Amino acid sequence: MMKRIDPIQINWKPAKNKVIPVYKQIIQYVCDRVASGEWVIGARLPSQRTMAKLFNVNRSTISIAIDELTSYGIISGKSGAGTQIVSNTWALMLPTKPSWKKLISSGYFQENNYRLQQINQLEFEPNIARLGTGELDLRLFPQKMWTEVLQKMSTEITSWGYAEPLGILELREAIVEHMRQFGINVSTENILVTSGALQALQLIASCMLKEGSTVFTEAPTYLKSLQMFQSAGLKLNGITMDHDGLEYWKIKNQIKNSESSILYTIPTNQNPTGITMSDIRRKELMDFCIKNRLPIIEDGAYQELCFDNDQFKPLKSIDDNGMVMYLGSASKTLAPGLRIGWVIASKPVIQRLGDAKMQMDYGASSLSQLVFAEFLKSGKYSSYLVDLKKTLKKRRDNALECLTKYFSQLATWNKPIGGFYIWLTFNESIEVDDIFERALKKKILLNPGDIYDFKHNRSIRISFAYLECDEFKESIKKLALLLMDK
Amino acid sequence: MMKRIDPIQINWKPAKNKVIPVYKQIIQYVCDRVASGEWVIGARLPSQRTMAKLFNVNRSTISIAIDELTSYGIISGKSGAGTQIVSNTWALMLPTKPSWKKLISSGYFQENNYRLQQINQLEFEPNIARLGTGELDLRLFPQKMWTEVLQKMSTEITSWGYAEPLGILELREAIVEHMRQFGINVSTENILVTSGALQALQLIASCMLKEGSTVFTEAPTYLKSLQMFQSAGLKLNGITMDHDGLEYWKIKNQIKNSESSILYTIPTNQNPTGITMSDIRRKELMDFCIKNRLPIIEDGAYQELCFDNDQFKPLKSIDDNGMVMYLGSASKTLAPGLRIGWVIASKPVIQRLGDAKMQMDYGASSLSQLVFAEFLKSGKYSSYLVDLKKTLKKRRDNALECLTKYFSQLATWNKPIGGFYIWLTFNESIEVDDIFERALKKKILLNPGDIYDFKHNRSIRISFAYLECDEFKESIKKLALLLMDK
Repeated sequence: MMKRIDPIQINWKPAKNKVIPVYKQIIQYVCDRVASGEWVIGARLPSQRTMAKLFNVNRSTISIAIDELTSYGIISGKSGAGTQIVSNTWALMLPTKPSWKKLISSGYFQENNYRLQQINQLEFEPNIARLGTGELDLRLFPQKMWTEVLQKMSTEITSWGYAEPLGILELREAIVEHMRQFGINVSTENILVTSGALQALQLIASCMLKEGSTVFTEAPTYLKSLQMFQSAGLKLNGITMDHDGLEYWKIKNQIKNSESSILYTIPTNQNPTGITMSDIRRKELMDFCIKNRLPIIEDGAYQELCFDNDQFKPLKSIDDNGMVMYLGSASKTLAPGLRIGWVIASKPVIQRLGDAKMQMDYGASSLSQLVFAEFLKSGKYSSYLVDLKKTLKKRRDNALECLTKYFSQLATWNKPIGGFYIWLTFNESIEVDDIFERALKKKILLNPGDIYDFKHNRSIRISFAYLECDEFKESIKKLALLLMDK
Repeated sequence: MMKRIDPIQINWKPAKNKVIPVYKQIIQYVCDRVASGEWVIGARLPSQRTMAKLFNVNRSTISIAIDELTSYGIISGKSGAGTQIVSNTWALMLPTKPSWKKLISSGYFQENNYRLQQINQLEFEPNIARLGTGELDLRLFPQKMWTEVLQKMSTEITSWGYAEPLGILELREAIVEHMRQFGINVSTENILVTSGALQALQLIASCMLKEGSTVFTEAPTYLKSLQMFQSAGLKLNGITMDHDGLEYWKIKNQIKNSESSILYTIPTNQNPTGITMSDIRRKELMDFCIKNRLPIIEDGAYQELCFDNDQFKPLKSIDDNGMVMYLGSASKTLAPGLRIGWVIASKPVIQRLGDAKMQMDYGASSLSQLVFAEFLKSGKYSSYLVDLKKTLKKRRDNALECLTKYFSQLATWNKPIGGFYIWLTFNESIEVDDIFERALKKKILLNPGDIYDFKHNRSIRISFAYLECDEFKESIKKLALLLMDK
């Protein structure tokens, strides 16, 4: 039974002197009519020509508004039937609801969200050389280990229900064993398995920290992963580094209330700079934090990728006072798609976090947990890491050689002791935004330093982990030529 | 180099007439001293006897405070060294920071959080009969399908990096195909793969809904899964059901502002009542929602478990206006540990949600995604579902028989057409809290209806999915005897 739908009546004109552009006023007007129920589903809009006349605007202005309303799925132009209202619920939330991105208030970073999204998309383009990407070369995937473990599990596993609140015991036992080599001696009660390190941050933000607290962090840092701190109402405060790491003494006069500050740090093979905090700096930082009662979140994502094993033990390994929460992850060493991370902290803190996780009902896939437990227990993961570090070391050396050869006159950089990254800072004459676009035309994707910083910089993040030596050389050469050819 | 630590000075007494118990005042006092830095790590507390004197309280009061401070890890009693301050950062957040549970403001539910946590823990006890649990019997795990798929994948998969923003294409294609049988015809662009249905709810809450909005839902419902709505500042409003499902007309005079309300519903095999909305009610509800511009989140967790296939198509299958967001999940049909769910919505809505997910960097494990894609594509999942439904149907019939035999004089219940649950409502003489404790002593774990409701009720949720027919019969018989034996 079709109900007769009254023709749409328009008695409104956009204001031409308003701050809001005319096309946006039109979108808002249409949305308001639909939201109020005045214009029902199936109601037909006048032709664009008629609307242009009614609103007293150009056809092109109408056209922009109609296109945007169509893209949200609010209206649809069916051939013959004209443009109709087709949705009045979810679709209506798309233009009117303030974008969730508005939650992210870190000035400079916010503006760079566009660039970040652009890079996220470009990463899926075929034949693009990702010169700064934060992902391990997929060709380094340990196929043999994977096949063996999966075949073993295909017959051994007989069920998987909801996992234990803190994570499957077998995995926590394996993590305890694994962390010993880094000087971290804890028990299974000190470990919470999470769905990647980001879930850990989310749990900490939501059930440990007070709104309005300050999170100190290296500047630049991997800001993207800290967005949830901001969503949880916490403030980020970037502290610069020298070649020994975080200049912790600069925190001192910025602490307003010691109760409501924490420090988030990536002391080893930092993302994006590749800087590793020296042993002396680590001790000094710990003393400083003890003195100022500043709790630490230590992100150990790249801790396991020090090319020479005995270097740079985690802060957690010299923590006698439950000051450091350590975050581990398999995302950088093995595969982000596994979604396995872990938190190490005191038992009561782990209980609190585990309780929150249980109530949220999240948690890592049991399948991923069991696979990673088997990787660890079988010793396969350790020997894989040895090989991986050899490969990455070779690639780093190659990268440094290439930079010396092609960039000596154009930029400066550091020599990382592990991880994925080199931080390349250009000479004053070079504008990163300009290079980004020009490199893109040559199918080279760069990660501008601005993405990671609280203010403008002249740097890019270089990764030697994603491309093979020859590919890297070719791309870096192209980039250098492009720079000299301006 | 050991620093000399000044002995602790105490010039304070708890107020005895305050609303706050004395032991809590003492805890607060100690925390404040430690937080301010006045009492440093290593500082020794006076003996309990001395403190009792100083504070002018009983030894037992001191003892309670000391125990609690110890449990947080703030102080520790080392033999010979007395009780010392051992942590002044994270540990200090445990007693002082308002519990994250305070976020949950749904009156009755909040009070029941304790019971919920108790049940969560009891579920891991050995030899306990879980008569109301929301999990499938682990013995129904499809071992053969699992072995075959894992063996295939052990050689076929050669890498896994970050997955595509909306989820691995192969899986989205398989889901598109899978949903056709339920009358839902969409394309891969309408599907977002999430880490369980709960992540979907979190994404919707954080990037679609306005703070202060009202979420209408069945009463009782699976409140636990709706906590994040409340954490996101949304209000829950429970609407009662009759045997045809949600009494939607009761929403009418509670809608204050049509823009800021949505409906969350489990129309098929509802959790916890087992009620399925009739076809007529579905159509009426859709008309009502269209008329009132009320967007719907349809939770299809139990949609695939209708024992007779052709019954009760999802609301999404009769949605012409992008009014319904459908949530699918493998948690109830296969294994919650897989952490695979999906949202079906219009393309622009999926884009918005996918964008948020990408920025949060969450997402389901690639491994889980690939495994589930293979389950679906190979047809193994469909034939597994056929078997599973046969088994569950048999168990339901057995459960109904048992109830008729043992509970006719004690309670009333409904006959579900699928899913896991029967809603058992006791006669007036019976108190659920009382039965819960008594049943527990007999190693039977019940799920009191209060956990799911906005107000007190006299019901329990019975599940026929977790126990075999004989086990179910035995437990239900025990329970009946217990009830008659009061």
